[in-house]
Amino acid sequence: MTLRETLARVVAASPSAMAQARAHQGRLTKPPGSLGALEEVAVRLAGAAGLSPPPMPEPAALAIFAADHGVHAQGVSPWPQEVTLQMVANFLAGGAVANAFAAQVGASVTVVDVGVAGELPVAEGLLSRKIAYGTADLSQGPAMTVPQAVAALEAGIEVASSLVASGARCLITGDMGIANTTASAALVCAFTGRDAGQVTGRGTGIDDATHAHKIAVVRQALHANGLPSTGLSTPAPSELSASGSSASPGAGAADLAPPGLAASAEPQPVLADSGQESPGGREPLEVLAALGGFEHAAIAGFILGGAAARVPVILDGVIAGSAALAAAALAPAVIDHCVAGHRSAEPGHAAALDHLGLRPLVDLELRLGEGTGGLLAHPLVCAAVRVMHDVATFDSAGVTEKQS
Amino acid sequence: MTLRETLARVVAASPSAMAQARAHQGRLTKPPGSLGALEEVAVRLAGAAGLSPPPMPEPAALAIFAADHGVHAQGVSPWPQEVTLQMVANFLAGGAVANAFAAQVGASVTVVDVGVAGELPVAEGLLSRKIAYGTADLSQGPAMTVPQAVAALEAGIEVASSLVASGARCLITGDMGIANTTASAALVCAFTGRDAGQVTGRGTGIDDATHAHKIAVVRQALHANGLPSTGLSTPAPSELSASGSSASPGAGAADLAPPGLAASAEPQPVLADSGQESPGGREPLEVLAALGGFEHAAIAGFILGGAAARVPVILDGVIAGSAALAAAALAPAVIDHCVAGHRSAEPGHAAALDHLGLRPLVDLELRLGEGTGGLLAHPLVCAAVRVMHDVATFDSAGVTEKQS
Repeated sequence: MTLRETLARVVAASPSAMAQARAHQGRLTKPPGSLGALEEVAVRLAGAAGLSPPPMPEPAALAIFAADHGVHAQGVSPWPQEVTLQMVANFLAGGAVANAFAAQVGASVTVVDVGVAGELPVAEGLLSRKIAYGTADLSQGPAMTVPQAVAALEAGIEVASSLVASGARCLITGDMGIANTTASAALVCAFTGRDAGQVTGRGTGIDDATHAHKIAVVRQALHANGLPSTGLSTPAPSELSASGSSASPGAGAADLAPPGLAASAEPQPVLADSGQESPGGREPLEVLAALGGFEHAAIAGFILGGAAARVPVILDGVIAGSAALAAAALAPAVIDHCVAGHRSAEPGHAAALDHLGLRPLVDLELRLGEGTGGLLAHPLVCAAVRVMHDVATFDSAGVTEKQS
Repeated sequence: MTLRETLARVVAASPSAMAQARAHQGRLTKPPGSLGALEEVAVRLAGAAGLSPPPMPEPAALAIFAADHGVHAQGVSPWPQEVTLQMVANFLAGGAVANAFAAQVGASVTVVDVGVAGELPVAEGLLSRKIAYGTADLSQGPAMTVPQAVAALEAGIEVASSLVASGARCLITGDMGIANTTASAALVCAFTGRDAGQVTGRGTGIDDATHAHKIAVVRQALHANGLPSTGLSTPAPSELSASGSSASPGAGAADLAPPGLAASAEPQPVLADSGQESPGGREPLEVLAALGGFEHAAIAGFILGGAAARVPVILDGVIAGSAALAAAALAPAVIDHCVAGHRSAEPGHAAALDHLGLRPLVDLELRLGEGTGGLLAHPLVCAAVRVMHDVATFDSAGVTEKQS
């Protein structure tokens, strides 16, 4: 399925299914609202599926998209670039944390090479969808060409479709790519309008000097790509959702874009008839190509592919969060099909989730990636949905209701 | 096993096993510290087991202790008292949220009647350990006699021992008892020294007027039992742990007890040779008997029984948290064997966890009880431990380490 076809298939949550789910929650043998945030998870998944109760989100499939980053040359990570390739081998051997967590929750693991800077042997569980041997350096110009970004998006869509065809009823995003928190921070700046100093974190662990340098590199990346250093902001998906409150896109965010810089960027509407144009005249796809990694683009496609199939997607950390910003800029309704698995220690992740209007389920200061936070959330999502299937109503169980 | 024997068997965490676990974490193929709070869970369980890596905490067994409360007559809950008995029937029929969550995480469910105010038919999965048909009204005097509290504690110990003997490698606390958040709030006041206004919540859902009345009832309960209205405070278990920093017990907390009231209470050291005497001259067992429910005492015993067998115990919400305060006052090292499954919406729960020095794993505003929050945490605890068993080291996987 092409990107264009996929975007056309992403539909917003069904308000009637959500209303049915809320009403059903109220009849179950528990005090109203007593399952806290999990009740909303069940209601949202009912909306996404267009069905109450929603289907059980089992079995789950984790896809780990791996790629390398030209910006690694700027010294933004203390890890050598070859660790990306070595960790792919570790995933395939079953030795990484993602494998342990997947085994714990019963998820399958698929590894997808979308841009590792090295040769990987053919192996079971590895899909080769390599677009290039790493991106170009985003601090010097676009990390990807737009056709490369589309190819990565379509690789993600294909993996999602294939996993759903194989029976997956929940998709979990995973990533591997040394230096990919730098690209994530740049994407978060561009799509939320936040400053690089607010959203650039310490990734897998860097000292103060490297952190300051990383922030400067993110600023330089925005500048080199003709994007204002405070970022361009897309409207939050909640402002554009099926609820009908769609305001003039970007009306508020346009204030954030310095007129000079915004005007200097030439609009290149690659997908002008679909998706959401960014304020400042830059197409979301162009922003993604300029700043993202191959795994970011592929994860954005994976999310869109899941949403198009009406199979929920659990987002992992800041890489998934920044990819989801791109996906939501292309098709705002995609967020109705997403669950935020966790909130990582990266500050850009909280900014992304805030912009997307998603509440994370697990909040334990993880900062590993690979899909680990998404995997941990899977049993919680299942538990939330299982309540809708298994729990008795006050009537059926003969339990007396609360006295008003 | 008697309470006295059990208390004698509760040993503190092994510092050497914890050190081994920390060192092992550092060799695994992940950035140091990148699993956040889950790394500490694995380290703590290694300490509790005296073994690194610690045993996998599977299979898990949930025990739901059910009882009624004389204080229900004070109008502290909008739910009729018979809901306790009706919900026990719902648990046995598999129709409650706890059943759905237990099915999701693969935990067994055992229901224990320690004081339901009605007759329950013999049923599979139900243990009858009824001590009385509900407690006396704590706002008028002691809720239990000390022998009743000991009987409930020993019922909990017996259930823990029996589940461990049947193969359980993780115990999860559960409770059912209309009005039991009132007793919990009183226990939290007594054991932490906090004011009733700070720790008394809305339970399963009450209006402002009922909430104000509930706070007044908790204050009255403290007064009626000769306890200062700001509570007596036991020292935090962390101050008394095996780390050797054991200060003069109660030195700090004694400041909280108004001298007049504290002096008026006659010490009755029921277990003078074991456990921790509360400041103000009141024995912890006496405080538990005065303010607790049968399920609180049984859960305290269940926690002690798990700790004595060196099987970790996942605590559910405020009922378990307040029971753990009592258990910790009897044997401070018991907390080394506990994991806080979640933090509920009840303010007294946060106060209890703070006093116990435990960080909750799930924080989703649940306020249901039954063990639901503890069950949700079980996969997270397993994932934390599984990392220690399954994940490759940098050496074994041939992954290059971070450059310092």
